[in-house]
Amino acid sequence: MDKTNIKIKRYKNQKMMCEEDVVVCEHPLTFYINHHEFITLLCTPNNLCELAFGLLYSEGFIHHKDDVLETFLDVKEGICRIMIDKDIDIINRLHGKRVRTTGCGKGTIFYRMIDKLKAKKIKTDYKINKNIIFQMSKTLNQKSHLFLETGGVHASMLVKDNKTIAFSEDVGRHNTIDKVVGQAIIQEIDLKNTALFTTGRISSEMLLKTLKAKIPIIISRSAPTDLAVQLAKEYDVTLIGFARGERMNIYHDVKRVIL
Amino acid sequence: MDKTNIKIKRYKNQKMMCEEDVVVCEHPLTFYINHHEFITLLCTPNNLCELAFGLLYSEGFIHHKDDVLETFLDVKEGICRIMIDKDIDIINRLHGKRVRTTGCGKGTIFYRMIDKLKAKKIKTDYKINKNIIFQMSKTLNQKSHLFLETGGVHASMLVKDNKTIAFSEDVGRHNTIDKVVGQAIIQEIDLKNTALFTTGRISSEMLLKTLKAKIPIIISRSAPTDLAVQLAKEYDVTLIGFARGERMNIYHDVKRVIL
Repeated sequence: MDKTNIKIKRYKNQKMMCEEDVVVCEHPLTFYINHHEFITLLCTPNNLCELAFGLLYSEGFIHHKDDVLETFLDVKEGICRIMIDKDIDIINRLHGKRVRTTGCGKGTIFYRMIDKLKAKKIKTDYKINKNIIFQMSKTLNQKSHLFLETGGVHASMLVKDNKTIAFSEDVGRHNTIDKVVGQAIIQEIDLKNTALFTTGRISSEMLLKTLKAKIPIIISRSAPTDLAVQLAKEYDVTLIGFARGERMNIYHDVKRVIL
Repeated sequence: MDKTNIKIKRYKNQKMMCEEDVVVCEHPLTFYINHHEFITLLCTPNNLCELAFGLLYSEGFIHHKDDVLETFLDVKEGICRIMIDKDIDIINRLHGKRVRTTGCGKGTIFYRMIDKLKAKKIKTDYKINKNIIFQMSKTLNQKSHLFLETGGVHASMLVKDNKTIAFSEDVGRHNTIDKVVGQAIIQEIDLKNTALFTTGRISSEMLLKTLKAKIPIIISRSAPTDLAVQLAKEYDVTLIGFARGERMNIYHDVKRVIL
């Protein structure tokens, strides 16, 4: 349940092959504490009861396992209801309501955003040559001076007409996308004819950020999640992972890659 | 400004050395749109104007750079004020107020939490042998089956009496900590005598999660941020990074490591 098999196109040894690949599952889970909606996490669906206890403990809602009176978990519906032996209202005022995902605060809003995006596929004829993908993936690593020095950041880069037009590094994966999109906005560059290169894993949020910025192609040296692949297919965003050396996995869609 | 030099203890070639190291800077930045507090990000202080434009564009607040009337950036105070040509109230109702950090929704609440934690150092005599650190770092990698298969997850592990007592994998770095803490809570294990091993980078939030769970030692194969190091020193959490093979960087504090 925490991983799933999908069909991908794998480019390796100068050949494109149809293969099966395993991607990690990313699943939204909304926590209700004493009937109050508390938080929505994007998480991997395993050890979810432990996640609930750990989250409540770390957030100061419980101090002992006996503070939890009841838990109800519906993974399919993405709901975890927890009854605790405490006045939630006081805690709510202390904490404020929060929404958390793998990388940034969206959660329930996340769904509304998907609704808003419906039928908003990016209309573009933009394509990218496989050699540019390999070359630019290398360029991204070479440009990442802050990573080379500290090891503590991610990097993103926008490519247009086979050239780097924006580059950024940040402790937050998502911030690197915002930074390069911001650079493009300031320069008034049409993002429909660009490709986004990133070092970060591609979660659903990374994919949504790409889609909302109307960038048709996202390429990472890391792995995507199943939800990101699903969204890429639904909204026709080209999603390429594990772009390293002269290899890559095309999760969707080979039509924008010139071989 | 996006990196800083700090003094660390580096263990390498069976010797402990005092050295200078470079860590990436992590800085909270609160965005106000038309005088309304919108979001607090933990980010690396470079390209902040671009970050503002990219964030507003990606969140649907602006569609063109000319929608931004004015920006005011005070990095030292961690404030970015943006005036846009739009009725913020309508957008606010659409989006809801959000707080975002590198990994989860805390932001301004984050500070209140630090306040709450004041003088709440973990009281423990727990120590860990350097050989256990090296051995358990290896164990963490070997146990990460989901990572080996998908490449898309992080893993965390709790160690007590030289044994693994909890292990988890998740798409979210922070979720892995919540999951192992949850396992410990359910088993009623005293976390003051445990060490947390993680594959994820140690940002301030990862450090705070460790501190709130009263775990005195956090060890990662990855890098910490400057803010995490600062908090580790302030609250006396032992923070070890780049634990790979027979090497490690001790950012704070060597007293809990038996050499």
